[in-house]
Amino acid sequence: MLAALERELATLNTDVGIVQTQYATWDEPLRLKSGVELTPITLAYETYGALNACRDNAVLVMHALSGDAHVAGRHAPTDRKPGWWDAIVGPGRALDTARYFVICVNVLGGCSGSTGPSSLDPESDRPYGARFPIVTVPDMVAAQVRLLDRLGIQTLHAVIGGSMGGMQVLELAINHPDRVRLGILLATTAQHGAQQIAFNHIGRQAIMRDPLWRGGDYYGHEPPAAGLATARMVGHMTYLSEERLQWRFGRELQKAEELSFAHGSEFAVESYLDYQGNSFVGRFDANSYLYITKALDYFNASDGYASLAEAFKHAQARFLVGSFSSDWLYPPHASEEIVAALQAAGRDVEYITLESPLGHDAFLLDHERLTPIIREFLTSTEESGARG
Amino acid sequence: MLAALERELATLNTDVGIVQTQYATWDEPLRLKSGVELTPITLAYETYGALNACRDNAVLVMHALSGDAHVAGRHAPTDRKPGWWDAIVGPGRALDTARYFVICVNVLGGCSGSTGPSSLDPESDRPYGARFPIVTVPDMVAAQVRLLDRLGIQTLHAVIGGSMGGMQVLELAINHPDRVRLGILLATTAQHGAQQIAFNHIGRQAIMRDPLWRGGDYYGHEPPAAGLATARMVGHMTYLSEERLQWRFGRELQKAEELSFAHGSEFAVESYLDYQGNSFVGRFDANSYLYITKALDYFNASDGYASLAEAFKHAQARFLVGSFSSDWLYPPHASEEIVAALQAAGRDVEYITLESPLGHDAFLLDHERLTPIIREFLTSTEESGARG
Repeated sequence: MLAALERELATLNTDVGIVQTQYATWDEPLRLKSGVELTPITLAYETYGALNACRDNAVLVMHALSGDAHVAGRHAPTDRKPGWWDAIVGPGRALDTARYFVICVNVLGGCSGSTGPSSLDPESDRPYGARFPIVTVPDMVAAQVRLLDRLGIQTLHAVIGGSMGGMQVLELAINHPDRVRLGILLATTAQHGAQQIAFNHIGRQAIMRDPLWRGGDYYGHEPPAAGLATARMVGHMTYLSEERLQWRFGRELQKAEELSFAHGSEFAVESYLDYQGNSFVGRFDANSYLYITKALDYFNASDGYASLAEAFKHAQARFLVGSFSSDWLYPPHASEEIVAALQAAGRDVEYITLESPLGHDAFLLDHERLTPIIREFLTSTEESGARG
Repeated sequence: MLAALERELATLNTDVGIVQTQYATWDEPLRLKSGVELTPITLAYETYGALNACRDNAVLVMHALSGDAHVAGRHAPTDRKPGWWDAIVGPGRALDTARYFVICVNVLGGCSGSTGPSSLDPESDRPYGARFPIVTVPDMVAAQVRLLDRLGIQTLHAVIGGSMGGMQVLELAINHPDRVRLGILLATTAQHGAQQIAFNHIGRQAIMRDPLWRGGDYYGHEPPAAGLATARMVGHMTYLSEERLQWRFGRELQKAEELSFAHGSEFAVESYLDYQGNSFVGRFDANSYLYITKALDYFNASDGYASLAEAFKHAQARFLVGSFSSDWLYPPHASEEIVAALQAAGRDVEYITLESPLGHDAFLLDHERLTPIIREFLTSTEESGARG
């Protein structure tokens, strides 16, 4: 009895428990970077913890390419898995929900509740498909700023994101400088170079060359599963390090003792990739994949400024930048470029690069090492504020 | 007049000129590693220079995944491009055709004249398609040994190959030790690990999930161009270094001055990949891509031995092993594993690793630095032989 009670208490102490996705809608058009005015706009978001009376304890989490608003906890007790960053968000965790009001918003162009290519186009009353306007990271952030306004949050205590999430942090800190005090960027880059664009391009081509894509109008039909699975497999490779793949799979066969001398998957790493590709098809929309990877390729933190350092002169936040040694999608040198520009702009920045065999995905997986680093950064500033 | 004559002489001095592909056919079945007996077998090959009276000046060039027998020269004066390693093979070049009898054979399973999945299956009188037996690197080499027999060459002066070509060199040197005196391995590996298998798997999946693949029976129909182009784009990425991609393309747009805010290719690197993918479809058979990548994944130089060092105890050749710093498909550590095993086996080996930004493709491109290295290795042994 006591043991069971303790276990339950332990859960209560560390888990945000059952959460619900919320929705906010605007009829007022959002003018996108393309010049297109998009309306209506719905954003799906989740919040954890409570906003304090001063409304100054909010922390915004920005998700990556295939993420969504569901960062932590479960939607139902029977959910097999909690949110995508549950190890980081919760009572006593790095983003301590006993202290902070944590918010996460599904990006514009996504497929997890926010307006995107699978949404109904009010003009035609059918899904936008490929007629959805191209959205950019600045557009995604502008939409989230609307949500902050609606929630009555003028200035975030912090904004944090890895990968594409880090790009959104950069955009918010540079172009909405009064909205954030602390910015945490993990495993990210100020802009894509040729290699990152190339891998995204291959994924998009795989989708658009799939006959089931039907020019984007596949809703109500079979989706372009083959193309999306291929795109996901290509993307997934860029999230993993050679070392991790080799350690986990090597040349192991999935089932047999000997090579089959037949077509089809037989190495364990092949089955793993098949699983990654096929399961992604069940949870992600192929058109959203096109739009979000395009936003990644378009993003350039220094857009509109003479240089990245010039851009950072407009920022007001203090920054924590983190990279991982085996991340070959956004390698440490991409973070170091950001750090150098921040320093050149006279901004306050802490940089950590973690030795890790986990590749790009380390930002999602290495919560044990990230927790004290994030916690200390969020806290140290409060202290320095107290001293000021 | 004189200048024109000089130019012509210069060409005569350095170019093998017009060459013809030759064909050899056997009705005697070849027993493959799978146990299947394959018959008939045709090998397409080219030769350059002349076999000497002692029949001991032959150098066999082993080609890589998408290569063929056409190493050097032109099939017709109007050919836009010479063979794939023309800078290395010719009078006065690294493989000096004034001195050596250079041979190159299209691999079994290929699509450039040798028996492969697009060949007619004598049992059904239609192309094999996916019913072609799985072939391995040892099978490819066994077929080439047949050709050496037919050409009356007992022992090659040297065998040289990069990438998959290097695997064939390993196989020949270990399992046909009396057939070769010198082995040159460039940008290769003794076996694929999980990352290399994974990228090949994605390519194969892209082909086999293309509805036009039709279970392999697309001959006489439209080929699975989308799948093959995607496979090629994925493969091509592994041949290039991030540095080279960034230097050559960066974030440059192909035509426009500004982002299009539309679907489709617009970055220069996207157009480049589209070109690579689409042009490959015109010159390569999708089924051959499946078979040859499978052979790459299956290959393990130590198969049948307790270790790679044990395998090398059976070799008799002297070795030159070369790797390139920015090759992330078969990184220097893969070559160093080979070198360490050769040394453990007491074999004579020279190792060079070249600092190069060209990635895996450096073995095809960096002929200026490779030429003296290869030439010296081929010559030094003659001298040491003279001393013996």
